Amino acid sequence: MDWIAEIDTAAGRIADHAQRTPVMHSAVLWDRPVALKLEQMQHTGSFKARGAFNTLLSQPVPAGGVVAASGGNHGAAVAYAAMRTGHKAQIFVPEMAGPAKIALIERTGAGLTVVPGQYANALEAAQEYEARTGAMQVHAYDAPATVAGQGTCLREWEAQGLDADTVLIAVGGGGLIAGAMAWLQGRRKVVAVEPETSQALHTALAQGAPVDVEVSGVAANALGARRIGRICFELAQDWLGASVVVPDQAITAAQRALWQSHRILVEPAGACALAALTSGAYVPEPDERVAVLVCGGNIAPDPLG
Amino acid sequence: MDWIAEIDTAAGRIADHAQRTPVMHSAVLWDRPVALKLEQMQHTGSFKARGAFNTLLSQPVPAGGVVAASGGNHGAAVAYAAMRTGHKAQIFVPEMAGPAKIALIERTGAGLTVVPGQYANALEAAQEYEARTGAMQVHAYDAPATVAGQGTCLREWEAQGLDADTVLIAVGGGGLIAGAMAWLQGRRKVVAVEPETSQALHTALAQGAPVDVEVSGVAANALGARRIGRICFELAQDWLGASVVVPDQAITAAQRALWQSHRILVEPAGACALAALTSGAYVPEPDERVAVLVCGGNIAPDPLG
Repeated sequence: MDWIAEIDTAAGRIADHAQRTPVMHSAVLWDRPVALKLEQMQHTGSFKARGAFNTLLSQPVPAGGVVAASGGNHGAAVAYAAMRTGHKAQIFVPEMAGPAKIALIERTGAGLTVVPGQYANALEAAQEYEARTGAMQVHAYDAPATVAGQGTCLREWEAQGLDADTVLIAVGGGGLIAGAMAWLQGRRKVVAVEPETSQALHTALAQGAPVDVEVSGVAANALGARRIGRICFELAQDWLGASVVVPDQAITAAQRALWQSHRILVEPAGACALAALTSGAYVPEPDERVAVLVCGGNIAPDPLG
Repeated sequence: MDWIAEIDTAAGRIADHAQRTPVMHSAVLWDRPVALKLEQMQHTGSFKARGAFNTLLSQPVPAGGVVAASGGNHGAAVAYAAMRTGHKAQIFVPEMAGPAKIALIERTGAGLTVVPGQYANALEAAQEYEARTGAMQVHAYDAPATVAGQGTCLREWEAQGLDADTVLIAVGGGGLIAGAMAWLQGRRKVVAVEPETSQALHTALAQGAPVDVEVSGVAANALGARRIGRICFELAQDWLGASVVVPDQAITAAQRALWQSHRILVEPAGACALAALTSGAYVPEPDERVAVLVCGGNIAPDPLG
């Protein structure tokens, strides 16, 4: 696949819909300056809106609209993108997603079904809905249109003057980092950062193939994919610079540092990439300029509760 | 005073110390696009760090260090700037400032005295300390070095490509807007926004001179100056485009909109300028491009509690 062309096209397609998110440098988060992209300021609070818009705008959407099963960020993004592009949407959310993320989806105006139990139960309900109505499933991470949409994030960052040798990116199912690898293709080093408690990519790399993993921990409702996406895994064979894991307490410490230093309030997943630097899980070379992608801000409970 | 030269000099002086804060455009906060500068991401969570650094770096600091009385943001900024530039600092805070702002000052490492009662009590204690120790008072808003420091905010925004006819700015004692007027000198329209419950500038303009006003309301611990600064009042005679007031409920609605639309979490004062647009207190012309300065993020309670 010509990823560069796909991502260029995606960027044009979503330009009037996605938020161009701000960038900054911090001299106080770590020993040396760190470039940040504040992608948690994207519509619905995560990068997921990029992939959702690209998916909805790149193919015919059936009259039955779209359907998604999601623990939160992906569901909110699909709901928002569908409403903004005039399509029907039905989102199936596991009860464990919690009231803040459920309220986020409600505010979009999309249909919402809260399913008792875990993500797997929500997915099953969504598949039944798809079969019954002909609605289109929007995959959270392992589809080319999703990956190309997420790839626009790094494309945008470079257009904003990204000044770094290395970009650290949190990994759940791998959609965001897949988009980054697809766009950069080795021009900058990409470092995958996963919680020790949810390490689908790290495990797949160790075992030579995507396998199911147990997921838990503070970032599980955003990064807790049970199996890394095939697209991500394949791109990682060619383009991944390093894969590291961080303990939950490093994630919550990084979350606190982002708030205390810069009034950037993120969910744990949004601080995961920074945690690799601040905990020493990833140690750059002395002259290596680093960048951290801040990817999700849907903290619970709602701070304005 | 040659304000342009003062602000140019201040910008050079504080360049290695102040955070260059990000900017963005929002298409969803109001009917038309709005340019934002996220100055709540400044060190210690408000623009006040600019004036504090400029004050400490532009004059000899006595061996007794610096002293400030502050309900919160100014005290935190002076404390931070003093620690970063190697000076002693003692901050007197009224009990009403609350635990979040008090903790913010504690984290800087400066000396902290929590004074029972209101701001006036803290100010009295600070003045006693100044007389006893020879420490230098840093004024929160009505001193040329403070105003020149705050003026670097608009200077920086223009360097970042500010694309607006009009800039809306919240006003407490008037240091930030004074800096903006001093820098812009009518090149763009400056709109002063105050809470109905704390309108020192609006009242001064109506009465033709700074006068004491009653202060209360959701933003009082940041915007509740009893009397507008003389420097601000004089600059306003020449350069202020409009003065509007907004009700507290418009401020909290704007605060909620910033969080829900962009994961920008601010204290009420930080949302005050936006509230003028979203409440209709200020109605731009159909072709008038507007910008909103987001100025403070020290929300209480601490969202990561």
